Amino acid sequence: MTNPPAATAARENVAALLARLGAAARAAAQPLSLASTDDKNRALELAADRIDAQTDTILRANARDLAEARSRDLTAAMLDRLSLDADRVGAIARGVREVAALPDPVGAVLAEWERPNGLRIQRVRVPLGVIGVIYESRPNVTADAAALCLKAGNPVILRGGSESTHSSQAIYGCLRDGVEAADLPHGAVQIVPTRDRAAVGAMLTMPEYIDVIVPRGGRSLIERVQRESRVPVFAHLEGICHVYAHAAADPAMARDIVVNAKMRRTGVCGAAETLLIDRAAVRSHLPGIVAALADRGCELRGDDAARATDSRIVAANDEDWRTEYLDAILAIRVVDGIGDAIDHINTYGSHHTDSIVTADERAAARFLAEVDSAIVLHNASTQFADGGEFGMGAEIGISTGRLHARGPVGVEQLTTYKYVVRGTGQVRP
Amino acid sequence: MTNPPAATAARENVAALLARLGAAARAAAQPLSLASTDDKNRALELAADRIDAQTDTILRANARDLAEARSRDLTAAMLDRLSLDADRVGAIARGVREVAALPDPVGAVLAEWERPNGLRIQRVRVPLGVIGVIYESRPNVTADAAALCLKAGNPVILRGGSESTHSSQAIYGCLRDGVEAADLPHGAVQIVPTRDRAAVGAMLTMPEYIDVIVPRGGRSLIERVQRESRVPVFAHLEGICHVYAHAAADPAMARDIVVNAKMRRTGVCGAAETLLIDRAAVRSHLPGIVAALADRGCELRGDDAARATDSRIVAANDEDWRTEYLDAILAIRVVDGIGDAIDHINTYGSHHTDSIVTADERAAARFLAEVDSAIVLHNASTQFADGGEFGMGAEIGISTGRLHARGPVGVEQLTTYKYVVRGTGQVRP
Repeated sequence: MTNPPAATAARENVAALLARLGAAARAAAQPLSLASTDDKNRALELAADRIDAQTDTILRANARDLAEARSRDLTAAMLDRLSLDADRVGAIARGVREVAALPDPVGAVLAEWERPNGLRIQRVRVPLGVIGVIYESRPNVTADAAALCLKAGNPVILRGGSESTHSSQAIYGCLRDGVEAADLPHGAVQIVPTRDRAAVGAMLTMPEYIDVIVPRGGRSLIERVQRESRVPVFAHLEGICHVYAHAAADPAMARDIVVNAKMRRTGVCGAAETLLIDRAAVRSHLPGIVAALADRGCELRGDDAARATDSRIVAANDEDWRTEYLDAILAIRVVDGIGDAIDHINTYGSHHTDSIVTADERAAARFLAEVDSAIVLHNASTQFADGGEFGMGAEIGISTGRLHARGPVGVEQLTTYKYVVRGTGQVRP
Repeated sequence: MTNPPAATAARENVAALLARLGAAARAAAQPLSLASTDDKNRALELAADRIDAQTDTILRANARDLAEARSRDLTAAMLDRLSLDADRVGAIARGVREVAALPDPVGAVLAEWERPNGLRIQRVRVPLGVIGVIYESRPNVTADAAALCLKAGNPVILRGGSESTHSSQAIYGCLRDGVEAADLPHGAVQIVPTRDRAAVGAMLTMPEYIDVIVPRGGRSLIERVQRESRVPVFAHLEGICHVYAHAAADPAMARDIVVNAKMRRTGVCGAAETLLIDRAAVRSHLPGIVAALADRGCELRGDDAARATDSRIVAANDEDWRTEYLDAILAIRVVDGIGDAIDHINTYGSHHTDSIVTADERAAARFLAEVDSAIVLHNASTQFADGGEFGMGAEIGISTGRLHARGPVGVEQLTTYKYVVRGTGQVRP
């Protein structure tokens, strides 16, 4: 298919624009990797102050985004993600200050040892490189992602969703002011100043300028990024999380964990989507769980064995085991013991976060070892899948990839390492 | 371009073959990740015993490869890499035993902490997944790579060069015997049983079966893999390594390190390719270095300032600063101080291994911080760039990528981690 000349010209302009941003980011990488903790923190604190001071400006920009969004028939959920108020802007500024308060990961000595020939070897944390963040409607990602990348010494190129352009630009202006006031390089934090979707394609295919892509958004964005990217991607496609109620589970604990894992917030990636329950626990445990969920308005879809216990459970099909509802819907499957449960999770899950509830330590140990997910829990809710809950501070996302960063991606996961070797003239025999 | 029908049919057959190998490897991943250290070591020791016992068979297979290679006009260097003798076969068996003797990385607790709510969080090492190793003529890679992958709990699919087919198959047979005798899954170690080059393309594009590709070979192989792969690649494209003789270097130490870094073995990736020398050190240090290298038959290519000191130095051009000679040739550039040296390395180098020779600790600290390479050394030869020399045991290669594995890739670098969280019924507020 041949593109019309106008589209081709526009694409070339976007490619040239992204190459300029990329070159500036690459040029910023070394000075930013050597920037002091104080300078980075000063930039973040000044940016947070600017966000507070500019609240009205940010809200006016957000009102423009919302007006345009309404004219484009966005869903209520999308409008909610997009909309800011003074409290939300205050939370964005606080988030940036929290990142400033985190320990600086750069320069940490991860391991050190001495060789018999006297060489002293250190593995030292260094920044990862230039990070491209591609996100959708949430304007707060502009500040969250930029703050984490900056703290870890990485230049960042932000590409927000077209529906949040004005809000993101206003927040970005505050970050840029902080970077300038702290005398950090201009290329440290940049935003793509065009809504042209060709910008995303350009970011995915410039390994000379961008080292890692972090996509934040819905399934179609993540799938596109994973399909087209020529650079590594830190992403999770889905959080199809399970709670497994083992026969030896305390019934009240199982109920409370399932209710929390499903209903605390249904739209987060750590929300449970499927309950697996041992056949031996169906009579003793399931009625309490079903009653508690039904009381809270949760739709229940189960297999025949589950449905036999309660008429409120409608029939589930194979597709339900593979679905991330992100809604008040829970799939329920009766399993024949722990092996069956583990097989189900490794087959239908998304390697994100899965929990077993049991008083049997041996069963717990087997589950924790054999479930191949970034986070496995015993007797705790899947909704703890969160960098803040892990004590890692803010996170840029939760990775379900196996390489480099797995689980919550915080400042440490936005670094790599180098080997520093000190000798006294050693040559190799 | 349309492929002829026969080629298309062959490609489909190769794709189906690789999909079968991939499915067997994927099926082996969980059992192998849970295999005991004893079982993995038993498989490796039995394989090493078989390699010793089958030396004659392996040498006959190698003789077939060599006969075919001679009829295809391979270079002397390629024939040398391909050829085995009883000593080399013995070294292959010893290498497998050395991997068996390494600590098992799987299950190690990398970090653990407790949260205020009582959740106990551990970061635990787990295998990386299915690894595809694509290599060229060295048949020993068959055993080295398979042993490292197996020890780290990863199924491996080996694809050796067509010129070493018979040798690699013979060595693979010994590994398979070890795997079977230790009752490990059949898919733990597999070799691609076809010379069809379409097999490489298939391996690079099956992320459902292969998690990481490790290419071992020349520039054209690595470039092809990096260009076409849809899965992460652990590779170094080139080792353009530098020694920087700082003005405060001890002259004898600088000479000995340069000579070793260049001449100990010229064909390894850690061999130095460029000497950078401070203008202030040219008169005092360069004549001794040049004399020592010229005595050993090293060709010298320098800039005008270097050439003014010795007529044996021929003119270098810009291309020399970017060339991995892998031969007895050294490029020499005179620099104006440490900033100039660091700029040269970060511009022309390959982010592999670089060394400063100096008695000035502040200069050393700056060099170690600002040179953006996987390995940076002070007062030691670049030829120490080696997993064995680092005390990491055997290595599958040295990575110049920034993500996941950087520097020598040993058994630990062939793992990832998961978070194991233990609670007592915690739900998230």
